[in-house]
Amino acid sequence: MSEPATRTRRARDGARRAVYDAESLLAVAVAEFNTRGYDATSMEHLSKAAGITKSSFYHHVSGKEELLRAALARALDGLFGILDEPDAGRGTPLDRLRYIVRRQVQVLTGDLPYVTLLLRVRGNTETERWALDRRRAFDAAIAALVTEAAAAGQVRADISPGMVARLLSGTVNSIIEWYRPERGGLPDLPDDVVRVVSEGILGQT
Amino acid sequence: MSEPATRTRRARDGARRAVYDAESLLAVAVAEFNTRGYDATSMEHLSKAAGITKSSFYHHVSGKEELLRAALARALDGLFGILDEPDAGRGTPLDRLRYIVRRQVQVLTGDLPYVTLLLRVRGNTETERWALDRRRAFDAAIAALVTEAAAAGQVRADISPGMVARLLSGTVNSIIEWYRPERGGLPDLPDDVVRVVSEGILGQT
Repeated sequence: MSEPATRTRRARDGARRAVYDAESLLAVAVAEFNTRGYDATSMEHLSKAAGITKSSFYHHVSGKEELLRAALARALDGLFGILDEPDAGRGTPLDRLRYIVRRQVQVLTGDLPYVTLLLRVRGNTETERWALDRRRAFDAAIAALVTEAAAAGQVRADISPGMVARLLSGTVNSIIEWYRPERGGLPDLPDDVVRVVSEGILGQT
Repeated sequence: MSEPATRTRRARDGARRAVYDAESLLAVAVAEFNTRGYDATSMEHLSKAAGITKSSFYHHVSGKEELLRAALARALDGLFGILDEPDAGRGTPLDRLRYIVRRQVQVLTGDLPYVTLLLRVRGNTETERWALDRRRAFDAAIAALVTEAAAAGQVRADISPGMVARLLSGTVNSIIEWYRPERGGLPDLPDDVVRVVSEGILGQT
């Protein structure tokens, strides 16, 4: 109960500059959603965090669900964009998987707050269910590629392709739990992740 | 906004039986916290989900934070309990790591709702910060063991022990994202996870 009060005071003290442009409002909203959870975040929380009045906020967006949708769309566009890249469709299934994993790590660390929000969606609203469906479609594309690689003998055969795909996504996505860009960029992270998932989960060196 | 209304109707229709014992109240509360997020869950949500009045609920617990603490303690006791088991202290650092990972998967799948709640804690209340500190202490114990294994040449040397420990915990913990006991118990899961993390993340076969 003490946290919102602290935030309110900080906003009143003018510790943050008021933000008005759509991109900045979105970033503020995503930070609030990630801190408190979407369901527990009100338009009042959002307007205070942005340092503007609630009515100014409503001048820009219809409500918090519009911001949620925009934020989740950004994360999903980043992930699905990978699948459209030339190298995601080039080479053996294993080559393609490795390329996609490397790029997933880059998208995830580059758009961290947006992907974090996406990965924590629970499905409590229409927008959240839409995002969950899209996430599942992305995971299904990866699982199909794992199955293709398994059929080509390029993936370990002692664990089912479905389980391989789940452990793969799980390992990659777990990066959001500890990666903090402000502590340094970890330039080797994409390659490190590709190496450990290749050797362990995919079973190839 | 339509979800709480649906839940209210369901509670009124008596679709669930009223629960009174502490263990069942805790299970109901954890399910509600996981569905809606702790911050967005009120005592009214909890009493409705349990099918009892708010005043009956207050007869059993002082408030939702007491339930949160009990639920998080259960998850933490399960995890720390592993470290006290004889096999967690026996053999080489690599043997011990493998034993702990196998048992972590078992605790995580056996107490899924409780561990899920623990892994989603944000640190917004005193209880959440206590749980985060305990979680960090557990992760630090694993990281110390990885460092010990690395010093003994039992863990891959091309990735820092700190990163190895993070990827290890991340892979294990990511199981909560997709494991659903009602779809079948996956008896091979602990061994499968030990195998992929041994070969990939730890770099040993």
